[in-house]
Amino acid sequence: MVIIGGDAAGMSAASQARRLRNEDELEIVAFERGTFTSYSACGIPYWVGGEVDSRDELIARTPEEHRKRGIDLRLHTEVTEIDVDGRRVRTRTVDGAEGPSGPDGWTHFDKLVVATGARPVRPPFPGVDADGVHGVQSLTDGQSVLDDLAALERTDDGGRRTLRTVVVGAGYIGVEMSEALIRRGHRVTVLEQAEQPMSMLDPDMGALVREGMSGLGIEVVTGAAVREILTGADGRARAVVTDDGEYAADVVVLGIGVRPETSLARAAGLPVGESGGLLTDLGMRVLGQRDIWAGGDCVEVFDRVARRTRHLPLGTHANKHGQVIGTNAGGGYATFPGVVGTAVSKVCDLEIGRTGLLERQAAEAGLRYVTVTVESTSRAGYYPGAQAMHVKMLAEERTGRLLGTQIVGREGAGKRVDIAAVALTAGMTVEEMTGLDLGYAPPFSPVWDPVLVAARKAVSKVRARSGGGSA
Amino acid sequence: MVIIGGDAAGMSAASQARRLRNEDELEIVAFERGTFTSYSACGIPYWVGGEVDSRDELIARTPEEHRKRGIDLRLHTEVTEIDVDGRRVRTRTVDGAEGPSGPDGWTHFDKLVVATGARPVRPPFPGVDADGVHGVQSLTDGQSVLDDLAALERTDDGGRRTLRTVVVGAGYIGVEMSEALIRRGHRVTVLEQAEQPMSMLDPDMGALVREGMSGLGIEVVTGAAVREILTGADGRARAVVTDDGEYAADVVVLGIGVRPETSLARAAGLPVGESGGLLTDLGMRVLGQRDIWAGGDCVEVFDRVARRTRHLPLGTHANKHGQVIGTNAGGGYATFPGVVGTAVSKVCDLEIGRTGLLERQAAEAGLRYVTVTVESTSRAGYYPGAQAMHVKMLAEERTGRLLGTQIVGREGAGKRVDIAAVALTAGMTVEEMTGLDLGYAPPFSPVWDPVLVAARKAVSKVRARSGGGSA
Repeated sequence: MVIIGGDAAGMSAASQARRLRNEDELEIVAFERGTFTSYSACGIPYWVGGEVDSRDELIARTPEEHRKRGIDLRLHTEVTEIDVDGRRVRTRTVDGAEGPSGPDGWTHFDKLVVATGARPVRPPFPGVDADGVHGVQSLTDGQSVLDDLAALERTDDGGRRTLRTVVVGAGYIGVEMSEALIRRGHRVTVLEQAEQPMSMLDPDMGALVREGMSGLGIEVVTGAAVREILTGADGRARAVVTDDGEYAADVVVLGIGVRPETSLARAAGLPVGESGGLLTDLGMRVLGQRDIWAGGDCVEVFDRVARRTRHLPLGTHANKHGQVIGTNAGGGYATFPGVVGTAVSKVCDLEIGRTGLLERQAAEAGLRYVTVTVESTSRAGYYPGAQAMHVKMLAEERTGRLLGTQIVGREGAGKRVDIAAVALTAGMTVEEMTGLDLGYAPPFSPVWDPVLVAARKAVSKVRARSGGGSA
Repeated sequence: MVIIGGDAAGMSAASQARRLRNEDELEIVAFERGTFTSYSACGIPYWVGGEVDSRDELIARTPEEHRKRGIDLRLHTEVTEIDVDGRRVRTRTVDGAEGPSGPDGWTHFDKLVVATGARPVRPPFPGVDADGVHGVQSLTDGQSVLDDLAALERTDDGGRRTLRTVVVGAGYIGVEMSEALIRRGHRVTVLEQAEQPMSMLDPDMGALVREGMSGLGIEVVTGAAVREILTGADGRARAVVTDDGEYAADVVVLGIGVRPETSLARAAGLPVGESGGLLTDLGMRVLGQRDIWAGGDCVEVFDRVARRTRHLPLGTHANKHGQVIGTNAGGGYATFPGVVGTAVSKVCDLEIGRTGLLERQAAEAGLRYVTVTVESTSRAGYYPGAQAMHVKMLAEERTGRLLGTQIVGREGAGKRVDIAAVALTAGMTVEEMTGLDLGYAPPFSPVWDPVLVAARKAVSKVRARSGGGSA
């Protein structure tokens, strides 16, 4: 069993296969181009922000731990070609490696796992490769931002300097990095091409996030198309230029999103979808292949609500893929049932949750829907710390089937979206949701949970639209 | 439309019926024995603990507000008889009332709503009626505890005294009152007859609660059957006596639970279940009746997991019942689909959630099951504030159907039970649950949510028990 890529999907697959098959039954070789395995890329903003002390805390399992469990892990080893018919992959050692690396040549496989992940979008504007411009995809990226910040923050007299920082992109990674930079005491400007931050939310909910971010002292500039990063005589970035302005920057962070890293797989003729992500069956086998699996950020996943595949790179899916692949490659049986599009994030105490379809996604899927938005509170209104929470809900016209839920609020807002995520998975209607028996006590929820309040309002709207009464 | 009882179920029914039918179409009269309407009894511990400033904050809607909405509300008016065949109720004024009360005589009804609530269990041991012994069922009870505490706390020199307090019963109300008393700076002993606090949890999970409460400085004495409350020469309680000891007490709080208040309904021949709660159909109509509805703490609800009715008094159900009754009585159509037995509670920062069946309830229902317990964390392990969380899960043998979930932990533990509550409602198996797409980001959850970790372990156990492999 050969694995390409040593992060969540690949190494979960390796571990799970090893759980089922011992070393006499199954040899497992994993090739990783970089230095690290099984790390939490999602944790990088918290490491940069100082909430997580060290890089090592983000590493779930080290190369040594994997090797001890009987996985032949080769670091600094890049796979350069997949020969599907010949059942072999060609590799080469990237640079001086600690521990086992290589070989430089062909390795035979009986079973292959493609877990090549995603690569950050690095738009081709001038200056994007200047010093002081950082991605936040890998631990190496994280270390480089941290080192750069630490060096610039120090003043000659041992004091600390406030930096001007610009974050390009206001998606998850962008807003999380803006929190990290605010925590370090810097000035933060976020430049977003769209008209609202968080394009994984509908514009009206994104506006609430913008409002919340502004309240935290983060400057959010929307409709801002970056044209160029200006560099100084020292080769360092000094400002980011958009169509409308110029934003001085000591440090620039790129958080523009990622694309599936599938050049290798495509060169080998493996099938990819519209987003460039590999296409698999329910068992995570690459379509048309018997002994090649793929998982993690390099595949498209089945969206159970829109009933199509899409690229949705998230560590939690990658781990599940790895489990499924390892089980199947180990001779067991498992499937990945798809996703409903759940995600949570936060900027300081502002929490954001979403699941299911946005309005534009529902329309793209050919669905007619109603939307409602309610404002409720995280706890009983009279209980101390009760915070405003906005819940938006989409339901299909006529059937009343739940299509999506977005929540923006403070404490207790983010994970509340799980209620809707489970309801979506179960195919519930908003009417069925109004009867849900959710946990109630004054410190936890109003007597009608905000999600139920939204469901009730959605029921009325579905009925009104269907020509029924409001009862 | 005549309503007996002016709290959550009764007044929600009144409000909802009024929404559908104006005053020309439907006259609504509500009789309430006490002084208050639509209040949150669940909020009383937080009022006593000082987290909620005033009684009025616990009142969702005052008598005046109800009257303004066209509901003829009579306070201090007790219904003494229901004449089902004659379609009338007999009432009498209890004492001097502000605003409209009475009449003393018969009132005709076309539609009747029985929302008589529950009464606290007041065990018949000697001294239970002494001064200084308090229930916590009504706002009047809450006021009386507060007044008593305030008077005793004051020292002659204007200082503040630490009191010895004893709480009898370690259910929700008992543990919540123990938090309130600890917050006021008093010594608290909780006496519980069972072997563990929180008998709405399995004993192993109850043991975690006991441990947490002890850590908060609350003395928890289990297996403690109260025999007597000793009173002093002044007629005040001075100690609580159990089989094994004597516990000095300046104030005693009774939190032993409640029974459905259905004497009136039973006298009228309306059908009750094993617990004494009224039996209704899915539309909350009393069985065998066309124009009499019942809801709130005086009814038995359908347990969707055990598929039987039980008494489960909770404000959140009462509100839903009221909605359903009001809709149906107003000429619309609504049903109450039953409960899955979800409840959340907390003692200081210790959070407790449960849904579905306990082991003993599953056994009583004739179900064979497996149980698993996992310890995970509320956030990614490396994220600051990640707290241990224990999740116990019951799944049916062979089918793997989820039967119940109990969670004990700190922040983020209580409401996480909603995930399982929705899964129970949807009839999911633990295998289906392992594929749930739940919100993941390091500040919110480990990459495998604790509920998913438990579900995965449950899958293995179900398979092992069915003779399958562990894959």
